Amino acid sequence: MATSEQNTISVRNPRTGQTDYTFFVPSATALNHTCTQLRAGQVGWAKCSIDDRIAVMQQWKTEVENHKTELVEALCADTGRQWETLLEADIVASSIDRWCSISKAFFATPIRKASSIPFLEIQQDLVPYPLVGVISPWNFPLLLSLIDTIPALLAGCAVVVKPSEVTPRFVEVINKTIAAVPFLGSVLAYVQGAGHTGAEIVNNVDLVCFTGSTATGRKVYQAACDRFIPVFLELGGKDAAIVLAGADLQLATSALLWGSTANAGQSCLSVERIYVQSTIYEEFVELLTQKASAVSLAFPAMNDGKIGPIISDKQVTIIDDHLRDALEKGAKITTGSTQCQNLGGGYYCRPTVLTNVNDSMKIMTEETFGPLMPVVAFDTISDGIALANSTVYGLSGAVFAQTTAQAIEVGQQMHCGAVSINDAALTAIMHEGEKNSFKMSGIGGTRMGPSAIKRFMRQKVFLIKNNTAPDPWHFA
Amino acid sequence: MATSEQNTISVRNPRTGQTDYTFFVPSATALNHTCTQLRAGQVGWAKCSIDDRIAVMQQWKTEVENHKTELVEALCADTGRQWETLLEADIVASSIDRWCSISKAFFATPIRKASSIPFLEIQQDLVPYPLVGVISPWNFPLLLSLIDTIPALLAGCAVVVKPSEVTPRFVEVINKTIAAVPFLGSVLAYVQGAGHTGAEIVNNVDLVCFTGSTATGRKVYQAACDRFIPVFLELGGKDAAIVLAGADLQLATSALLWGSTANAGQSCLSVERIYVQSTIYEEFVELLTQKASAVSLAFPAMNDGKIGPIISDKQVTIIDDHLRDALEKGAKITTGSTQCQNLGGGYYCRPTVLTNVNDSMKIMTEETFGPLMPVVAFDTISDGIALANSTVYGLSGAVFAQTTAQAIEVGQQMHCGAVSINDAALTAIMHEGEKNSFKMSGIGGTRMGPSAIKRFMRQKVFLIKNNTAPDPWHFA
Repeated sequence: MATSEQNTISVRNPRTGQTDYTFFVPSATALNHTCTQLRAGQVGWAKCSIDDRIAVMQQWKTEVENHKTELVEALCADTGRQWETLLEADIVASSIDRWCSISKAFFATPIRKASSIPFLEIQQDLVPYPLVGVISPWNFPLLLSLIDTIPALLAGCAVVVKPSEVTPRFVEVINKTIAAVPFLGSVLAYVQGAGHTGAEIVNNVDLVCFTGSTATGRKVYQAACDRFIPVFLELGGKDAAIVLAGADLQLATSALLWGSTANAGQSCLSVERIYVQSTIYEEFVELLTQKASAVSLAFPAMNDGKIGPIISDKQVTIIDDHLRDALEKGAKITTGSTQCQNLGGGYYCRPTVLTNVNDSMKIMTEETFGPLMPVVAFDTISDGIALANSTVYGLSGAVFAQTTAQAIEVGQQMHCGAVSINDAALTAIMHEGEKNSFKMSGIGGTRMGPSAIKRFMRQKVFLIKNNTAPDPWHFA
Repeated sequence: MATSEQNTISVRNPRTGQTDYTFFVPSATALNHTCTQLRAGQVGWAKCSIDDRIAVMQQWKTEVENHKTELVEALCADTGRQWETLLEADIVASSIDRWCSISKAFFATPIRKASSIPFLEIQQDLVPYPLVGVISPWNFPLLLSLIDTIPALLAGCAVVVKPSEVTPRFVEVINKTIAAVPFLGSVLAYVQGAGHTGAEIVNNVDLVCFTGSTATGRKVYQAACDRFIPVFLELGGKDAAIVLAGADLQLATSALLWGSTANAGQSCLSVERIYVQSTIYEEFVELLTQKASAVSLAFPAMNDGKIGPIISDKQVTIIDDHLRDALEKGAKITTGSTQCQNLGGGYYCRPTVLTNVNDSMKIMTEETFGPLMPVVAFDTISDGIALANSTVYGLSGAVFAQTTAQAIEVGQQMHCGAVSINDAALTAIMHEGEKNSFKMSGIGGTRMGPSAIKRFMRQKVFLIKNNTAPDPWHFA
């Protein structure tokens, strides 16, 4: 493992295009030192009762609440958008509360029990992985840095988090909240850096959680394989929605507009492909177009509208490429942008409805991460399902139908881990369901729902001989 | 993926040393064809109710019972030993029954529930991986080919199994039992072959379970990483036992003799290192030596004694190497063999107790897979624990102490997934506890206990909007 000199990374502001923030990247030696300290802190943390750990997490929640204004301000600077930031900041408290409640119940389960062999009892223990690494992306910088961190801490692990170098400003505030809680800093550290630092994280931890692109996720899987540690990957998506004749089109268009363009489409669970039964196709497109054209950009002021800037300039290039490719191959735009628009230094993309699209276009096959809504007509339900499944991804999906039963029946044939029924992108607001990522969208157990916390612990069993009767299987 | 010509593998008999069995290896094309057929069969299998799947498995159990004599005969030829074979053959029926009962309860759980958001309901579905690959070793050829196969089938997967090429004779009998059960052959196939065939299995499946050496396990992890599929590895061990002053030495020596030398030590869960508190060390060694010297080889007849031949000739080389290395470095043998002994063409190793051993010797650091019992004295309990943990492996362990509470307290400090308390190697007879492999002994969730079946299914959640009230988070 090569050590690197301490250096700095400069960061672009997504609203102004200016480089207005710089941070230090720790050297490999410094990162290794941080991890050694976290390992030392974890020994005591794992011995704490769950009530003690909950108490610390509740103090942290209070500190996050105390620093909320400052945190929102930093996140707004990081991401250039406001209403999603407020949503994100609100989720911290409810997420800490939910995991505290789940862990309380989880660790309360009695652990000693009889077995089918009369003289053997079984005791189940849970042993946290000492040090968990969390590598998180820029689209929801706070939320996605915490989604695995909170349950890992409650499980008794120490956690080292590396948020994206694209959105680093909030880390200063998070560090203040951590420093304000006794003990927490000994088991939780946010470190700054880019890919090289991410690789060093994998070199230092016992388990790694990564949220981000499939391309980088495959590299993380490889690094975990080399180190022989477990890996949990939550990667890209190309979520499909299926709208059947008989569906409530007012509901479907409103929900899909939101599900496709919230956070300017910069969400793994965004709907990126819409399949509509041919008998309602025209009406659907007309209604969606009308509603999409009424949604305004969050410009010039951050609270002027719903669609903020594209956060990462690399993503601007991808969105423009997907639009250009689609238009060259015959796609039509009924409302929206033919390319991202530079407004005051930031790049914005209007909610854009596309027709005449097909699977030869990147817009239908690669993750766009922009507020684009390509809409395709299908005839039979099985055609619609086949189209929805014609992707290497399998994160989530949505179905709209006349009845819930029909929508679920269709959803059961979709190859993905979560299906919103008569709504879209509900995993954004509901984290209680358990889901795996299908196909190239991820590897490893569910990160949502109560059993997600089990990922951070090894099960250990004690097989206890409870009397001294002679044992028939011994030789002598 | 290169196709290979169909070829044959010839197999040595572990009792005679003669090559007396030959089997055909399917070409890559033929294997791919088998897997395609299994995928087709799995579609209907997954749609069956759990009761239907249980009925098929119960018919299979009956057929295995019907073919038991023939199966035991083939397994005895494969392994050269008898009493472990009888144990192994008996476990099939109880294992099928246990998994049928677990799956019945598992799939009976209600799946639709309310959520914390009033207008959202959650429905949890379980989606089996279509095709599971099982690659299993030669030490318990039948048992370890079934340990993942039975729950995977009940989960609704199709399964392709590649048992070790060292012990292939039982497969003909297993194939008869499969052919005798309607439907089963469409979702379960045993294929024969060596490493190349194992690699082709990984190329064809959606999830792979491997039981075997850590070296090969790392290759399987790499192959799974390349294909971006999940992997479950159960690998080597160097299990330690800790014996504290105050322990029942009659019990400890009998249990450890069994735990170290059953199946001639050819078990991942064999005790391979024994740490004894110094005040009882001499008495312990004397008693263990005395009992070990009374255990006889299963020669000339298979039922003449307890210690059968070393099954794989490669393992003979490893055991001899570990013994030579230890003796060169000063180890003393109080009873047993200085090397494996050729008797009638088979290689046998007597239960062998070694003293004057230390961590410079392979016998203390590498997996031996033979009936060797190196015994080391320690002073303080924490010394004993540190010695037990001084290994790259973390499969299981054992503790003997005056009280159960003290033994558990010590066991909690051992870095491994299962600890026998006042007995040894209990995971051989008790599969109800849930355990992860620590360190280099494996990757992935528990293969024992009720939740092991969840490894073969993806969780899928339906988030169901159950009324049409306006939704505050939609834009329009």
